Amino acid sequence: MTKKKLLTKADFPVSQVRRFLEPGPVVLLSSRWRGKNNIMTLGWHTVIEFTPSLVGCVIARTNHSFEMIRRSGECVINLPTRPLTDEVVRIGNSSGAEIDKFAAFGFTAVDAERVEAPLIGECHASFECRVHDRSLVGKYDFFILEVVKAHAAESPRHPKTIHYTGDGVFLESGKAFSRRSLFRSALL
Amino acid sequence: MTKKKLLTKADFPVSQVRRFLEPGPVVLLSSRWRGKNNIMTLGWHTVIEFTPSLVGCVIARTNHSFEMIRRSGECVINLPTRPLTDEVVRIGNSSGAEIDKFAAFGFTAVDAERVEAPLIGECHASFECRVHDRSLVGKYDFFILEVVKAHAAESPRHPKTIHYTGDGVFLESGKAFSRRSLFRSALL
Repeated sequence: MTKKKLLTKADFPVSQVRRFLEPGPVVLLSSRWRGKNNIMTLGWHTVIEFTPSLVGCVIARTNHSFEMIRRSGECVINLPTRPLTDEVVRIGNSSGAEIDKFAAFGFTAVDAERVEAPLIGECHASFECRVHDRSLVGKYDFFILEVVKAHAAESPRHPKTIHYTGDGVFLESGKAFSRRSLFRSALL
Repeated sequence: MTKKKLLTKADFPVSQVRRFLEPGPVVLLSSRWRGKNNIMTLGWHTVIEFTPSLVGCVIARTNHSFEMIRRSGECVINLPTRPLTDEVVRIGNSSGAEIDKFAAFGFTAVDAERVEAPLIGECHASFECRVHDRSLVGKYDFFILEVVKAHAAESPRHPKTIHYTGDGVFLESGKAFSRRSLFRSALL
């Protein structure tokens, strides 16, 4: 298991979580229900709105987390970085019905401010969410979450994230570059 | 303007478009309505299902493409690569109500097989889509599209894509790496 560091985080504006989520990284969803914590790996998500800060996620019902999030109406979206890849994969290949994933994978459950679900202390950022719209849960396992509180490490500004392609293969995020000068100011 | 190449593409399985979309790249949506073509830049999308091959997209109603796609019920998701960044940004910062974006940005409209909307010949991959579910269009501008036909260049397997963070800043996709050995076979 990777030697992992608990990261200090600062408040981050909920309307700006797109900085971390829009590039499409794999994330870890943490949840809590009836005194038990769980974590799942998630790759199917999209930003939906800035204000309120909405994120849509497919949380497949085959996951133990599905019922925990459906019943509690809450979860936390956590942003893991490249050094946590093995944990991310192992979390996605085990079930919270059988193991305590925080203990099994050496993660720290940190109290959230606005929800009962815990933050994952070793992730670069954590976004506390409440389920905002369940209308497509029945048909597509698609939850629309509202980010009600966001926390992020202050540096680096663009941490190295991992992006899944299927078949066990990931892409690292690469270098950041700006095209600011080509944007109309209203679209920045 | 970048010197651009028309790419030869092969049929690609619609159930596997996640290879290109799940990592979260910026894409170009092409559409056609009443004899006119258009292109928009889109960063808010997620895979929703393998079979049928479903992709959810926020197509904000402020885009000229919104009504074109809503009325025609069709569009094409095209995957631009790093050398096309300037065109991607310029497409996102101009309106199809004012200009013909194919002509203005030097892109080739190639006939699709299953929809009227054109493919963008210079993109690495193009996915022909029909609107599958409009139930969240009114509330969130969220369309669920079904990919009915997919085309992709045969190499490279993982082209360099661009991923938007806001503020005019993009991340390039970086190197691919495998963790196949850590997956349960049912999850590959």
